[in-house]
Amino acid sequence: MRACIIAVGSELLTPSRIDTNSLAITERLNAIGIDVRLKAVVGDDLNGLVEQFKAALGWADVIVLTGGLGPTEDDVTRDAVARALDLPLDVDEPTVDRIRARFERRGMTMPEINRRQAMVPRGATLVDNPNGTAPGLWLEHGATAVILLPGPPREMTPMMEAIIAERLEPRSRGVRLFRRVLKMTGRTESDVDQHAQPIYSRWTSQRVPISTTILAVLGQIELHLSACADTRAAADGALDAAVAELAAEFGDAVYSVDGRPLEAIVGDLLRARRLKIAVAESCTGGLLASRLTDVPGSSDYVERGAVCYSNRSKIEWLGVPAALIAEHGAVSEPVATAMASGIRSRANVNIGVGVTGVAGPGGGTPQKPVGMVAIAVQTDDDARVRTFQFIGGREMVKFQASQAALNMVRLMLKPGVG
Amino acid sequence: MRACIIAVGSELLTPSRIDTNSLAITERLNAIGIDVRLKAVVGDDLNGLVEQFKAALGWADVIVLTGGLGPTEDDVTRDAVARALDLPLDVDEPTVDRIRARFERRGMTMPEINRRQAMVPRGATLVDNPNGTAPGLWLEHGATAVILLPGPPREMTPMMEAIIAERLEPRSRGVRLFRRVLKMTGRTESDVDQHAQPIYSRWTSQRVPISTTILAVLGQIELHLSACADTRAAADGALDAAVAELAAEFGDAVYSVDGRPLEAIVGDLLRARRLKIAVAESCTGGLLASRLTDVPGSSDYVERGAVCYSNRSKIEWLGVPAALIAEHGAVSEPVATAMASGIRSRANVNIGVGVTGVAGPGGGTPQKPVGMVAIAVQTDDDARVRTFQFIGGREMVKFQASQAALNMVRLMLKPGVG
Repeated sequence: MRACIIAVGSELLTPSRIDTNSLAITERLNAIGIDVRLKAVVGDDLNGLVEQFKAALGWADVIVLTGGLGPTEDDVTRDAVARALDLPLDVDEPTVDRIRARFERRGMTMPEINRRQAMVPRGATLVDNPNGTAPGLWLEHGATAVILLPGPPREMTPMMEAIIAERLEPRSRGVRLFRRVLKMTGRTESDVDQHAQPIYSRWTSQRVPISTTILAVLGQIELHLSACADTRAAADGALDAAVAELAAEFGDAVYSVDGRPLEAIVGDLLRARRLKIAVAESCTGGLLASRLTDVPGSSDYVERGAVCYSNRSKIEWLGVPAALIAEHGAVSEPVATAMASGIRSRANVNIGVGVTGVAGPGGGTPQKPVGMVAIAVQTDDDARVRTFQFIGGREMVKFQASQAALNMVRLMLKPGVG
Repeated sequence: MRACIIAVGSELLTPSRIDTNSLAITERLNAIGIDVRLKAVVGDDLNGLVEQFKAALGWADVIVLTGGLGPTEDDVTRDAVARALDLPLDVDEPTVDRIRARFERRGMTMPEINRRQAMVPRGATLVDNPNGTAPGLWLEHGATAVILLPGPPREMTPMMEAIIAERLEPRSRGVRLFRRVLKMTGRTESDVDQHAQPIYSRWTSQRVPISTTILAVLGQIELHLSACADTRAAADGALDAAVAELAAEFGDAVYSVDGRPLEAIVGDLLRARRLKIAVAESCTGGLLASRLTDVPGSSDYVERGAVCYSNRSKIEWLGVPAALIAEHGAVSEPVATAMASGIRSRANVNIGVGVTGVAGPGGGTPQKPVGMVAIAVQTDDDARVRTFQFIGGREMVKFQASQAALNMVRLMLKPGVG
């Protein structure tokens, strides 16, 4: 089944507001196997809403409209739906009484304009709103279910839950949507797609078909897999097999098959092996330590971090020889290595990481351009150092460098990887 | 002029992702007097996109499409626009060369599928993408301007800026929308609204009316002011007066009247006074240093940072007496103070900051619950320490603590504040 979500309200078309109701609604719809194919945001504009709603009627099995159910003139959702479906609007007197009672409980008199909130397109069913004055509405037009809900999330959410349980789930005939998110780092989007496409193109024709979306975000590639199935067991079977295929193709590049971030994966490896880590950062400026410590319980394995922006701090805290900096420059593999070994020995931990680079926008030279970052990792029995060339602005270089450092740690700790 | 923004990408129709590009685009369009009337999100679905795009062609003066310009099969925006406008797609060889060169600069070979990114509907103009492989496209269809931009915000934003300046602004005439963003920290949204409402309700009836939106984001309140006027001078006059009224009401709580982030404001103060700073962090885990070093040129005033998760590191690197930790606990004002003075003297800088707290979700006690954070700041001639109680999850507590620490530094450095 295919759904369309329409959020109504001119404030949602300004630069500072966003429709977030659709996220919660999507989650509930997906859980009963209903796919969201279109989201739209329209202003308090009767004709615009009528048009958008009519277009959705042409293809959607479920249309959810949020907002525009208030008492004022610019609340147009009821009118738009009634006009589009060519239904008269009746005033529901029990609803007027309920709204009036709600005002009276707060020691207030119901303003007459609130009668608008009791207007019902003929044939619609009222949906109780425990947290506000505007009732929701449920209509059926041919095979399409139309749902009108108020905009405030605390009013909308329980009403949507009730509609899912009482009305939509019985219609959805058992099929549900299950998802998996597989994350990779160190490969480009086009490279991943080229290798993954022959694999996932086969999945669309199997008994439990899987659809795939590829997504490149800063320093990582995500593959979103979704399967429609009657039961979790059936979906899990298909998704497990799909994930295994991708893992075999991409090997070490895959760091997560359940959507968890890289810092959590590294944390798991450290905890499982009872290892402690300390990091020495120059260009990442604390971001590497901050990501490591975003993970609950990370105090079990993060011993300390040094943000050594000045050369003096590299010398004093990490024991990097001044001559080494003079000879190779602060951004160099020998200095990254000295930072890693310095923090490792001074913090007395198993793993030391050193990161030094040119975050930009200033400070680049032809030999050491903006985005060049040297990263060293030392463990109890191994030492590696690599120079990366990242692209983008300062915050992007910082993030990609922290990602590359975490990934080097992961690869050095992974069971079975030398 | 009326605009429609269409975001393309199936991932934007899942419960965990949202289109935020449209906010920045709306801001830029509003600034030159163009009104956004509809926003839509469609999946990687050629027919769905063709339909939505065709409907917008019926009424919009400007249509902005973001996303779906990647190299893979499921990047359908170019095809959808070409099909809807009945235009052939040509490969632009100079663009292929540019993409190939971009790969080569990173020591990689361009995969053949990337040629897709050089496909251009006949008659379209290419828009340079300084931060990625996919060029943008500009087309005119009758009186409608059609703009195709890549999805990643860092690629999209500068391209949109260029299109506004070079192509859209010359087409828009007359009245424009001017905005100001005033940022505050340390007050609640309802408190700010209660005090600001009587002020900004007067602005709606003045010669150049100003409309106001209040927005509460993590650890700060934003007031977005917008004025419609023929000239920048007229708008600036009204907005300057409005900002001055709010600044008088809220005083020190206002840290920015031009939308800049707190870490940049603190950086300005440090640079203007030629002061150096060093930070010692426990619960914020490097986030405070990372935010300070997000600002270009921050190496001029950030000397170093210490992420002291272990007690041992607090003792060794900051000289916090072990007895102090034993007596008061690591999360306490005396320990925060010792951290601030320790990092200040060891780094030999003007300003030392110490942050220690319970980030959660574990580690809370009745006396020291999750979200309790002690922050100390020492300058050349002043010392302050405060205990905060923040709410929310681990990352929220970290952010709010870093915000409060930056704000303490700001208030201690502000001219005229003792």
